Amino acid sequence: MRFEQAVSVQWLAEFTGAELVGDTEQMATGINEIHKVIPGDISFVDFEKYYNKCLLSAATIIIINKKVECPQGKTLLVHPDPFSAYVKIVKHFRPFEPANKMISDTAIIGDDTHIQPGVFIGNHVQIGKNCLIHPNVTIYDHVIIGDNVIIHAGSVIGADAFYFKRRKELKSQYDKLESCGRVIIENDVEIGACCTIDKGVSGDTIIGLGTKLDNHIHIGHGAVIGRNCLFAAQVGVGGKAIIQDEVILWGQVGVSKDLTIGQGAIVYAQSGVAQSIEGGKVYFGSPVEDARSKMREFNWIKRIPEIWDKITNPKNI
Amino acid sequence: MRFEQAVSVQWLAEFTGAELVGDTEQMATGINEIHKVIPGDISFVDFEKYYNKCLLSAATIIIINKKVECPQGKTLLVHPDPFSAYVKIVKHFRPFEPANKMISDTAIIGDDTHIQPGVFIGNHVQIGKNCLIHPNVTIYDHVIIGDNVIIHAGSVIGADAFYFKRRKELKSQYDKLESCGRVIIENDVEIGACCTIDKGVSGDTIIGLGTKLDNHIHIGHGAVIGRNCLFAAQVGVGGKAIIQDEVILWGQVGVSKDLTIGQGAIVYAQSGVAQSIEGGKVYFGSPVEDARSKMREFNWIKRIPEIWDKITNPKNI
Amino acid sequence: MRFEQAVSVQWLAEFTGAELVGDTEQMATGINEIHKVIPGDISFVDFEKYYNKCLLSAATIIIINKKVECPQGKTLLVHPDPFSAYVKIVKHFRPFEPANKMISDTAIIGDDTHIQPGVFIGNHVQIGKNCLIHPNVTIYDHVIIGDNVIIHAGSVIGADAFYFKRRKELKSQYDKLESCGRVIIENDVEIGACCTIDKGVSGDTIIGLGTKLDNHIHIGHGAVIGRNCLFAAQVGVGGKAIIQDEVILWGQVGVSKDLTIGQGAIVYAQSGVAQSIEGGKVYFGSPVEDARSKMREFNWIKRIPEIWDKITNPKNI
Repeated sequence: MRFEQAVSVQWLAEFTGAELVGDTEQMATGINEIHKVIPGDISFVDFEKYYNKCLLSAATIIIINKKVECPQGKTLLVHPDPFSAYVKIVKHFRPFEPANKMISDTAIIGDDTHIQPGVFIGNHVQIGKNCLIHPNVTIYDHVIIGDNVIIHAGSVIGADAFYFKRRKELKSQYDKLESCGRVIIENDVEIGACCTIDKGVSGDTIIGLGTKLDNHIHIGHGAVIGRNCLFAAQVGVGGKAIIQDEVILWGQVGVSKDLTIGQGAIVYAQSGVAQSIEGGKVYFGSPVEDARSKMREFNWIKRIPEIWDKITNPKNI
Repeated sequence: MRFEQAVSVQWLAEFTGAELVGDTEQMATGINEIHKVIPGDISFVDFEKYYNKCLLSAATIIIINKKVECPQGKTLLVHPDPFSAYVKIVKHFRPFEPANKMISDTAIIGDDTHIQPGVFIGNHVQIGKNCLIHPNVTIYDHVIIGDNVIIHAGSVIGADAFYFKRRKELKSQYDKLESCGRVIIENDVEIGACCTIDKGVSGDTIIGLGTKLDNHIHIGHGAVIGRNCLFAAQVGVGGKAIIQDEVILWGQVGVSKDLTIGQGAIVYAQSGVAQSIEGGKVYFGSPVEDARSKMREFNWIKRIPEIWDKITNPKNI
Repeated sequence: MRFEQAVSVQWLAEFTGAELVGDTEQMATGINEIHKVIPGDISFVDFEKYYNKCLLSAATIIIINKKVECPQGKTLLVHPDPFSAYVKIVKHFRPFEPANKMISDTAIIGDDTHIQPGVFIGNHVQIGKNCLIHPNVTIYDHVIIGDNVIIHAGSVIGADAFYFKRRKELKSQYDKLESCGRVIIENDVEIGACCTIDKGVSGDTIIGLGTKLDNHIHIGHGAVIGRNCLFAAQVGVGGKAIIQDEVILWGQVGVSKDLTIGQGAIVYAQSGVAQSIEGGKVYFGSPVEDARSKMREFNWIKRIPEIWDKITNPKNI
């Protein structure tokens, strides 16, 4: 997330109760999870084994739970609970703004776009031209939708990331990482009925130009879906997955988080993609393999009784 | 789809910019995909390998992208892009009619039917007697619902078919085939929460009498579900699948498009039906097989280490 | 379900047209399915093989379709169709109450709880403090929600159990068992978008404190989910399943009805839990097994061609 105006590290230290180390005149221009940071960003780290990754990242301001040496030109905000400090900053700059009507006055809706009854459009939403939003769709705050987009009834765009920090010592063990990312839906996308596309934790979930989603599809936080993809019904895509252009996922396929599916890959129905796979190939199985190999494997399995027969009647060999 | 009034082929030729070949006095009484055509229908074909199938079908008026010999008593509409001409006709005779209220004035709702708040009912919808439509359900235009039907909250009846023509040369590669079919829900059906039942491309999606659907079920365009079927939660059924009477599908079963499941078949949870299967039997697996054979196969797989041991220690044989 | 006031068995006999046998002065204090009964409850049995189970259960009043010997201190309501008599009583004491507005006047909503637009809240619902209910959520009658609960858009809490009695002799074969149970959501629960949590048939569906559900999750009637569980998107849990504390289910996992998952179990994506499994372990597969064994099995399958080669070329042995 970018801030509308740069924020001084002094203010941040005071706001979160952190100790300032390093450059005390720094200005923060955004806040991000570690894998999304750019210069000017605040990020946080609370496990010693990730200290270096965070300190050496592009992040300029690091909330950290130990007073370590500050890299040149950066600023540390030393805080006993960096996660909570990060969440406090997110909530301050992207507060929940209760709605009191179905379509926010702050939403910008393009020409020739038709919004059917029962649609909720949150604050700071932008919708392009010539779109059709069917009844009972929910569009959370800060979603950006291009031109010629169709969204079918009951779909939910921009709900929170499913992302929690476990604190085993607490009665309620899962502490919510507040999402400040957005959903961006590019031109010519069609989204089926009862789909859910979550916002990114701090970055954007993107549905690329011309991509078509059938019904009941789940796209996790921060996933980036390429152009001209085709996903059949009940597909689920985990957080931060990258799906390149022209990928086809058949019905009920599951895709894990944090992986890449290469351009033009085709994944058959009910398959499970647990790790990155190359483009231009056809896959099947859970976990997926090359579809033809998988089919041959199915045939080999059917031959086990024949094998058994051969070895228990060695004259058959 | 049937037209309310027959339409002359001369008007159609002019409207689409097509050249008329064959009987130039023909009247069209409907428009349909090739697998649904009856005499009087318009259909279209744009691949040479399907020309004969279409020319020899029951369709009376054929939109085609080459000037071929016209069968006796038929009419050709020769057009460089039959798909677009077909879509143009569909959009003309079944235009999108924006709603400006939750329940259309053109909807017909039977006695003792109760519509809960937040329900959207589109144009030309018919709902029978003694139904209960729970909150936040969406019923698109032209849906027909019988008597004693229950639809639980959040379900979406009659969204568009997921059906696109790929045009690799375009930036947005998938061209939408506009749906003009309907959804017909017969008497005594119960539909769970957050289900989606898509309309047919040109024919009807049908849910047969007494069938009960649990939650999160997807029924694709033009599927025909028999009487007294029972589908557990998160089942997905592909387009134009035919599921005969008294079929039981357990949770998360996936059914491909364009196949038939015979009467009384039972399919165990998480199975995948990729091809037609006979009635009266029990199935399991992805892809499905006879459930008992599949169970035996699982047992054989567990014996592979034993087989390995036998052959690497031949004295065990 | 508990009655607000005790009901005499004489009134029940007259109301249902049943014959009274045994203690004719008994008062009923509730009505329940057989596996939920406590003293004072009405229950029913209509298969001879279950007679003893019901007669010897904690139920005090038994609707039964044969005049058998009545256990000491109990009452029989002899009726030719116990199922229908049970449903008639349920419908009388928990009638469907049509809504005429989005938020019922009988709903009790705690301080600092924010209800977004488009939310339906039924009769006799209780919602605690500091909750956030996102747009287009549906909460059926009698649901109870604790404090600090978040429910994302499009979710449906408290729809009917998917529970039918088959009557093959009827045209519509499935007879609906009317649900009179509730859904109880404890403190600090977060429920994703487009989830469905069904009410129990007669008891309560419970989501334990601190549990977090991602999107498109289905929780069946009467399931009891423990504290601090984490379910990823598109998980389905069958009716009356018991899931103990701190269980993690990854995406698209299916859980059958009437089983127990032990505390702290982890089930990998797309797995199917068909029978009870112990806590503290990691599972994979459909049906699930110990995850490591399953992975080893996958490796063994890949060695079948090698085995074939060995036995058809015995010099390889």
